[in-house]
Amino acid sequence: MSGDIREEVGEDERREYLHQAQGLADECSSTIRREVRGGSLETDVKRDLSLVTSADIAAERAFRDLVHSLSPDAGIIGEEHLESNPNPHADFQWIIDPIDGTTEFVHKIPVYGTIIALHYKTKPLVGLIDHSVLDLRCCGAFGLGATLNGKRILLSDFESQLDGSERVAISAPANFIRYQETNQFFIRIANKFPNLRILHGCYAQTCTIVGAYDAMIEWNIREWDVAAAEVLVEEAGGEYRLLRQSDREDGSVYCAVFGRPRVVSSIVRLFHEQE
Amino acid sequence: MSGDIREEVGEDERREYLHQAQGLADECSSTIRREVRGGSLETDVKRDLSLVTSADIAAERAFRDLVHSLSPDAGIIGEEHLESNPNPHADFQWIIDPIDGTTEFVHKIPVYGTIIALHYKTKPLVGLIDHSVLDLRCCGAFGLGATLNGKRILLSDFESQLDGSERVAISAPANFIRYQETNQFFIRIANKFPNLRILHGCYAQTCTIVGAYDAMIEWNIREWDVAAAEVLVEEAGGEYRLLRQSDREDGSVYCAVFGRPRVVSSIVRLFHEQE
Repeated sequence: MSGDIREEVGEDERREYLHQAQGLADECSSTIRREVRGGSLETDVKRDLSLVTSADIAAERAFRDLVHSLSPDAGIIGEEHLESNPNPHADFQWIIDPIDGTTEFVHKIPVYGTIIALHYKTKPLVGLIDHSVLDLRCCGAFGLGATLNGKRILLSDFESQLDGSERVAISAPANFIRYQETNQFFIRIANKFPNLRILHGCYAQTCTIVGAYDAMIEWNIREWDVAAAEVLVEEAGGEYRLLRQSDREDGSVYCAVFGRPRVVSSIVRLFHEQE
Repeated sequence: MSGDIREEVGEDERREYLHQAQGLADECSSTIRREVRGGSLETDVKRDLSLVTSADIAAERAFRDLVHSLSPDAGIIGEEHLESNPNPHADFQWIIDPIDGTTEFVHKIPVYGTIIALHYKTKPLVGLIDHSVLDLRCCGAFGLGATLNGKRILLSDFESQLDGSERVAISAPANFIRYQETNQFFIRIANKFPNLRILHGCYAQTCTIVGAYDAMIEWNIREWDVAAAEVLVEEAGGEYRLLRQSDREDGSVYCAVFGRPRVVSSIVRLFHEQE
């Protein structure tokens, strides 16, 4: 890992940021639980037609307030972007998706979760995905490994040949056609990996990071959706590959694949063959 | 519902069978929990390449023993078919899939569940799906309604037009090609309903029965996989349509769609258009 810019941040400091991420996740989790128990959850449709609830808003508010008190100089990027980034040029940027999978959250399908990350000079330093309703938390930091509920994750690669029985999670076809593109790559993957899974929430990321799925393909998603996965999967022993970044008027969108290295490589090849 | 053969079974008797199904589910759930906690879960690959664990075997054994003591004259059909049906020609047939979604169970992804049904003269009388790890139980009986954790389910149809935003769950592409067929219908559905979901376990059935998904398409599955869904979705206010039954050497396989009536109708049309 020599030459990685993230080594500029000392190990103790990284450990401290990981600790801060845990505190931020606790804060989000208790805020969301309070909103749900309050029984007055309000749901709204955003300009991009995705859903937002009063729990998303309250959790991102709580996150922003706590980050501001912990490190007033850090930047903050949030899905609900309640306000502009207080420090857009800072080296350290905290990133939050308070509820990834809001549609499933509204329907009480527990595949949603809170995604928290800290990036340093655009590189992911700390990542955390919290599924408080499933009592699962996956977190990690550059050089410090990744854990699930405190237990170290050691993602092994396959001993066996790739044989089409791999379990591959993928974004819904809706993500593929979101910007007037075709779902051709989705169909290629469905043909090649018939044991496909589509959960529509970051629980699929967690399943991949811990090895319960062999790989995951995220398509046309936002920075906050994928902010934690890269460092988590790499620290777990897996591989993360960005397939495409498109800079749009309303921000960048990303296509990425991650998971067990051999499955990731085979999907990367499939992606380049079609281009 | 006049003329339905299931009216031959009195309402009180149906209520009693529903009660028995609950007891059978409790028995299966505690057996599975015991096996998991025992820490000696063994996994094996069956002739059809699907997985079976010692928890599947133990739960079906416990189910068979309890059915035998409750109603020695009833038939029993089980996924692990530990022995032949003791009463294959009986009017009442208890059906069990001890763990539907064994692959996900092995990987601790909580979309699996126990499916229990009682059929009378081949018609579904009682249905139950239990997700003990999620603390969710969906059950119902002909003419008595369906409940989730004791609360009556009332599935409404859409007010709005069908607009492609419906959430449709579907079997994995692997199910479509299982018997050397193509996955053409899978792809048609992916094109028509981009908000697709694939969970690989009966939790997708439960989500559809309670209205969290709008419809579900099950493809090339066995009697025990779908034994409970029909009566549950109909009693919840939805519709169930068998699309195809194929009688194979090793038993029948079924293709079905169920959920909100308008979405079900539109999928049935799509299925017949392609034929």
